[in-house]
Amino acid sequence: MSDPHVIIIGGGFGGLDAARALAGAPVRVTLLDRHNYHLFQPLLYQVATASLSPGDIASPIRWILRRQRNVEVLLAEAKRIDLEARQVVIDGVEPHAAPELGKATSLSYDYLIVAAGSSHAYFGHPEWSEYAPGLKTLDDAIEMRRRVLLAFEAAEREPDPAEQRRLLTFVIVGGGATGVELAGALGEIARKTLRQDFRRIRPESSRILILEGGPVILAQFPPALQQSAREALERLGVEVRLNSIVTGVDDRGVLWRHAAGGAAPGAPPPERIDAETVLWAAGVAASPLAQSLGVPLDRAGRVATEATLRVPGHPELFVVGDLCALKQDGQPLPAVAQVAKQEGKCAAENIRRAIAGQPLKAFRYRDYGTMAVIGRGSAIGVVAGVKLAGLFGWLFWVSVHIFWLIGFRNRIAVFSEWAWAYFTMQRRVRLITGDRSWRGSD
Amino acid sequence: MSDPHVIIIGGGFGGLDAARALAGAPVRVTLLDRHNYHLFQPLLYQVATASLSPGDIASPIRWILRRQRNVEVLLAEAKRIDLEARQVVIDGVEPHAAPELGKATSLSYDYLIVAAGSSHAYFGHPEWSEYAPGLKTLDDAIEMRRRVLLAFEAAEREPDPAEQRRLLTFVIVGGGATGVELAGALGEIARKTLRQDFRRIRPESSRILILEGGPVILAQFPPALQQSAREALERLGVEVRLNSIVTGVDDRGVLWRHAAGGAAPGAPPPERIDAETVLWAAGVAASPLAQSLGVPLDRAGRVATEATLRVPGHPELFVVGDLCALKQDGQPLPAVAQVAKQEGKCAAENIRRAIAGQPLKAFRYRDYGTMAVIGRGSAIGVVAGVKLAGLFGWLFWVSVHIFWLIGFRNRIAVFSEWAWAYFTMQRRVRLITGDRSWRGSD
Repeated sequence: MSDPHVIIIGGGFGGLDAARALAGAPVRVTLLDRHNYHLFQPLLYQVATASLSPGDIASPIRWILRRQRNVEVLLAEAKRIDLEARQVVIDGVEPHAAPELGKATSLSYDYLIVAAGSSHAYFGHPEWSEYAPGLKTLDDAIEMRRRVLLAFEAAEREPDPAEQRRLLTFVIVGGGATGVELAGALGEIARKTLRQDFRRIRPESSRILILEGGPVILAQFPPALQQSAREALERLGVEVRLNSIVTGVDDRGVLWRHAAGGAAPGAPPPERIDAETVLWAAGVAASPLAQSLGVPLDRAGRVATEATLRVPGHPELFVVGDLCALKQDGQPLPAVAQVAKQEGKCAAENIRRAIAGQPLKAFRYRDYGTMAVIGRGSAIGVVAGVKLAGLFGWLFWVSVHIFWLIGFRNRIAVFSEWAWAYFTMQRRVRLITGDRSWRGSD
Repeated sequence: MSDPHVIIIGGGFGGLDAARALAGAPVRVTLLDRHNYHLFQPLLYQVATASLSPGDIASPIRWILRRQRNVEVLLAEAKRIDLEARQVVIDGVEPHAAPELGKATSLSYDYLIVAAGSSHAYFGHPEWSEYAPGLKTLDDAIEMRRRVLLAFEAAEREPDPAEQRRLLTFVIVGGGATGVELAGALGEIARKTLRQDFRRIRPESSRILILEGGPVILAQFPPALQQSAREALERLGVEVRLNSIVTGVDDRGVLWRHAAGGAAPGAPPPERIDAETVLWAAGVAASPLAQSLGVPLDRAGRVATEATLRVPGHPELFVVGDLCALKQDGQPLPAVAQVAKQEGKCAAENIRRAIAGQPLKAFRYRDYGTMAVIGRGSAIGVVAGVKLAGLFGWLFWVSVHIFWLIGFRNRIAVFSEWAWAYFTMQRRVRLITGDRSWRGSD
């Protein structure tokens, strides 16, 4: 009899660590992902803001797992899970060049780890996505970079001062870590990187706003660090607007209203901000794959698991990462890389135990710390209970992120990019590529 | 009276060197390009074959020229030239994110340097372009990389052995420098880079063919070096087919016939090669902009200039680079970077002379050498009349190309990529990105 077959859906932090933790286990593993690369998502905003190349923060999943002989990697999208038949229905994702990938097939499993993650959520307004791209994949980051750089180019060509101001206005929706990091990087681009590049516009006159619906930015950090981050943002010229709910996004800008106002009669009408570039950093939605499971989901569409990460009533099914709704000490676990990695490892360990007939262990998250970077030489964080800020926080952030990056080569490349950028204040990857109308020319 | 206005169309080797050579001259310069970056085109095949990142071989034109105060850079496409009115009609190129760039405008000039280059030519069959992408822009290179990597992924998922063979067949049309360099790099990817990555296919069993219409590959090199290149290609498993004319390209492969056969009655019908991936390296066509000039063009659509690079009858109009048809000692000058750079400089010098009322000088090309690289540790070249081959040729090629690259930072990045790749035989940038159906997801 052959070894039990474990399918892992998703090659992000959760899925990849689950696959690695099954090295040497008496199982056959198949890891599915829609992309051929594992992405170091915490640094994706640096691709979107022209500091790093896509290749610096992504590695082919096959390559990462090339020496682990019990793993097979498939470039495929999981379309549906049939819990009864214990099958994953897969489909191709890139019909353009290789229609063969488009054939739908079913794969049978003995154990399934769902690590399918999350995507952007537009609060029920999918039509906003066209005007306000989010940041989940490399293609998203290249699109953001394209829009940001094109806005400056368009402003340089624009004779009308009002329109020029609109072109140089950047709105970031959401004041979490991604929103703050994007805003800080945009502030640096406008005030430092592009200083000498233009003749008709002054990039440093750009307006950069964060619209945050809640009463604070970086809600997961202590108030003192929130304050420190806010001051660092303001030094870069970023306006932070709290309690500001976005009620509309179109090709000319955004509409927003104060959170207290509501839609009550007599409340002031939403205000408009004219902006060419709107970046979405406001929320995530669980992968729609969860719905095909037919198991109870929470309001955010995530799967409620046992503390062992197993789904009640389905001893062969584990859910990890952003898709897993698990509370610890009464608090929901945050949707961050560290939680996903530790959960992936735990799910793998529990599959080993299940095969060996041992009792499963309960997942326990160890919080090593949370950080956010605002700009060159400026970051905040709480690490092992200690608060960090400013240059020291930034140096710590740099070390940790280089250490975490997958692959020796990526570490060297990213380190040298950052060192160069730190001293020159330049961003090397200011390329406008990824035109959506690509075609072979003649 | 303000300084005369010089417009340069194109930020490639010719246009960029013309702009630089006008530093400090009593002129206002406007440089137009459709892209925001200057591309080091001789290394584009390394992006297409996952060795280098786009950011390694491209730099923003604004950044390169940021300190030259008499130059203004515009991201714009020159649509038409009105020689009578001395105007260039420009248009935007990126209508998606910044519709403002789409406004057509006219710019007046006193002097015009046309350095608009060339694009792929499909021998009158533009419909082939969909199936056989060429290599001119970064987006082209990312598309090639996507197709090559997807072909291996599709083969891994394909149960039918015949179809698997088709997926692992790569046809390169054209045996010039680009075709040979692409084929050599593909041979290395199949035989070295991907060796450990797959479980069901053996990438080293891939078939890689060069179809060359003429009787030799690398026609510009001496026969001994052609032979040496051919042997190096064969060591990498590349099949070279000479005198092989492509008569059709579709989504299943290519049709070809022997050059001697012709379409004569009784000639054997074209043969089919089943291949998923067809890469076009066969020919270039002059930029269609030349047609709008209304001046005599040669058969290839290029502008016949005087030896001063000036167009007869138009003392204010200069043409340089691939678009310029100039002969030296009875031989047409090749469409290579060195010719374009030297012509750009000469045109700028002649504009300075024209303004100063001095006689113009005739262009004289100094051939510093030509090289082509076949793979790791293997290149051929003729430099100052000396033939180079093998490892020594490769080391020379590496030094020269790093020296030529624009920007200190790019040099370091490319050097470290190559050093790493040389010792590990890996290619770091194996990312499948640039899906044409990009859209913000929800």
